[in-house]
Amino acid sequence: MTELVTGLAALAPSERLLCGPGPSNVHPKVLEAMRFPMNGHLDPDFWDVLLELVEGLKALWRRPGGLSLCFSASGTSGMEAGIENLVEPGEKVIVIHSGFFGARIAEIARRHQADLIELTAPLGQIVPLQQVEETLRANPDTALVGVVHAETSTGVRYPVPELGELIRTTCPDALLLVDFVTSLGGEEVSPDAWGVDYAYSCSQKSLGCPPGLSPFSVSERALERVRGRKTPVPFSFDIDLLEKYWVQRPIAYHHTMPILQYYALYEGIRLSLEEGLEARWARHQDAGTYFQEEMRSRGYTFLSDPDHQLWELSAVDVPDGVDGKDVQTRFLREHGIEIGGGLGPTAPPIWRVGLMGVNANRETADRVLAAFDAVLPR
Amino acid sequence: MTELVTGLAALAPSERLLCGPGPSNVHPKVLEAMRFPMNGHLDPDFWDVLLELVEGLKALWRRPGGLSLCFSASGTSGMEAGIENLVEPGEKVIVIHSGFFGARIAEIARRHQADLIELTAPLGQIVPLQQVEETLRANPDTALVGVVHAETSTGVRYPVPELGELIRTTCPDALLLVDFVTSLGGEEVSPDAWGVDYAYSCSQKSLGCPPGLSPFSVSERALERVRGRKTPVPFSFDIDLLEKYWVQRPIAYHHTMPILQYYALYEGIRLSLEEGLEARWARHQDAGTYFQEEMRSRGYTFLSDPDHQLWELSAVDVPDGVDGKDVQTRFLREHGIEIGGGLGPTAPPIWRVGLMGVNANRETADRVLAAFDAVLPR
Repeated sequence: MTELVTGLAALAPSERLLCGPGPSNVHPKVLEAMRFPMNGHLDPDFWDVLLELVEGLKALWRRPGGLSLCFSASGTSGMEAGIENLVEPGEKVIVIHSGFFGARIAEIARRHQADLIELTAPLGQIVPLQQVEETLRANPDTALVGVVHAETSTGVRYPVPELGELIRTTCPDALLLVDFVTSLGGEEVSPDAWGVDYAYSCSQKSLGCPPGLSPFSVSERALERVRGRKTPVPFSFDIDLLEKYWVQRPIAYHHTMPILQYYALYEGIRLSLEEGLEARWARHQDAGTYFQEEMRSRGYTFLSDPDHQLWELSAVDVPDGVDGKDVQTRFLREHGIEIGGGLGPTAPPIWRVGLMGVNANRETADRVLAAFDAVLPR
Repeated sequence: MTELVTGLAALAPSERLLCGPGPSNVHPKVLEAMRFPMNGHLDPDFWDVLLELVEGLKALWRRPGGLSLCFSASGTSGMEAGIENLVEPGEKVIVIHSGFFGARIAEIARRHQADLIELTAPLGQIVPLQQVEETLRANPDTALVGVVHAETSTGVRYPVPELGELIRTTCPDALLLVDFVTSLGGEEVSPDAWGVDYAYSCSQKSLGCPPGLSPFSVSERALERVRGRKTPVPFSFDIDLLEKYWVQRPIAYHHTMPILQYYALYEGIRLSLEEGLEARWARHQDAGTYFQEEMRSRGYTFLSDPDHQLWELSAVDVPDGVDGKDVQTRFLREHGIEIGGGLGPTAPPIWRVGLMGVNANRETADRVLAAFDAVLPR
């Protein structure tokens, strides 16, 4: 038992250049949008905003049909919501993983009583498609395959288009669930063209919004699967109820939406479309590859297999004899820059550097490089 | 199949005085806090903010022990999280309800395979304690009792202190789950003193923060129940994992927190403690009872039994011959004021008027009264 406090100190956070694995810094116009007059979630003007936002989400996900909405929760909840909506207890689920977030998909599938098969590879590598193919052929009753497109813990990209094609040809009844948390807005993400039935992401990385929301996109056939379920879905993340809330008029009230966060997401998507998705991807690619080349020229190496290296996020190997944690602290205290470390107890010694959203440019890369040079002079 | 849009219109919401069932208008200092420099969720400075926020949450909930934290999701998710953490499939749950949100607790318990007993009363009334006592005596194996303290759909307050005492004396092993969504910050809420094992609320009503968060408070014995579960809890709302994230150092990463929302909550709690909880409750009581007296003097009546009438939220009966929906629209379009209507298809014709957070004062009440007089002249 402790005493209850009678007051709190004033909040006074310091400025940060957020170049870790996310969140990235919020675009100034997105911050402005959060200062617009707050309407209620049952205000008919806000319902119009929601309908326009649905069009924006469809464009962002490049899926004209199906359903593209957003959960009022974190990307982790978006991950769990996919399993909750698409998998029934006892159904066979294959999770392909070689990183913290892929392993989390497996953990969540386990908690929801899936009949789980895990395919893993060493950190920095991908599970070969050949191995996935063999597993699919041996398990034609697979209900769902789960994988992370851009693994935030290792900087590795999975070849999702090829995986989608493989499922289509070898195990066409299996749904494909993909985590696009780090890639949406930072590189091509085309779930419809790639055969991804359930795609989810977050607001705070390449989209340049604050954390708190999980945009998602579902295929028509996955929606049919949800509608034909035998066991109920938890209320909070029931896609069917959310569709009635977002899209039907009059709306069927579901929960009180975080209005200011949705203003932010709206503005983030508006800015993304204004810039052009292809231009935005190219900007992220240019910033990330520039950073990686510069780091390589300084002798640094990366955790990821070069054939599968992300550009939004780079996992830099901590050189022998260097205390990675101490370097992170000095970045923060001496340069006001956040970079990440390894995630979880089994992570190798790495730094994770993200150049996402407003930070995806060479000027920001140069600030990070300058901090590396200052903290670890050659 | 529709065409994908290539751009979104600029967002331009209108000013609103939010006097419906919530959200209420956000305190200007809370909005300022959301403009403070955003730190990352893995920033050690932010971990210090979290620890200070935990102290604030304990003080707000008036529970020195147990666990008081916050879900990064809506109050509805806070409701579901309670059932998910505290009830296992097949366990007996009694839900006491006479309104939309109480019925939602029952719906969620049903989805999570509880052995459900529902005790109901007509809208505006409460289920008598005598009836609850009989049910408890007949069901000594009850695992959990659920009820709403301040029913937002009807303006009715349930006598939670008496219910807590009743459970303690007749069915001491049953846990008590209570929805304080509309009451926290607006009137006395003392879960520890009242024997409430799981209390949850939201950020956007009497606390004067934007919607998006669900503060909660759990008793020590409920935590033991969670730790002794046989079946797993969904990952997103696992209280045990959240405790490791919020309170343990080094933290065990769980999800990316909506940092700006937590800045807002911090500032909202800081302001509440600065004002003093008792003073804040008195301010809400004064504003609400003033509004109700003024409305009664104009001939209006209320849905709620006067013995159980809330003051934060008043459900005003729509007079015969008046189109309640049309009046709401005129409030919005002619006066910039949001008031609520009935919630759900079975709701009687009512308006729901909330005077919460920064709006809990007589000046705001007078603005709403003036709009009633203008739209419905006597």
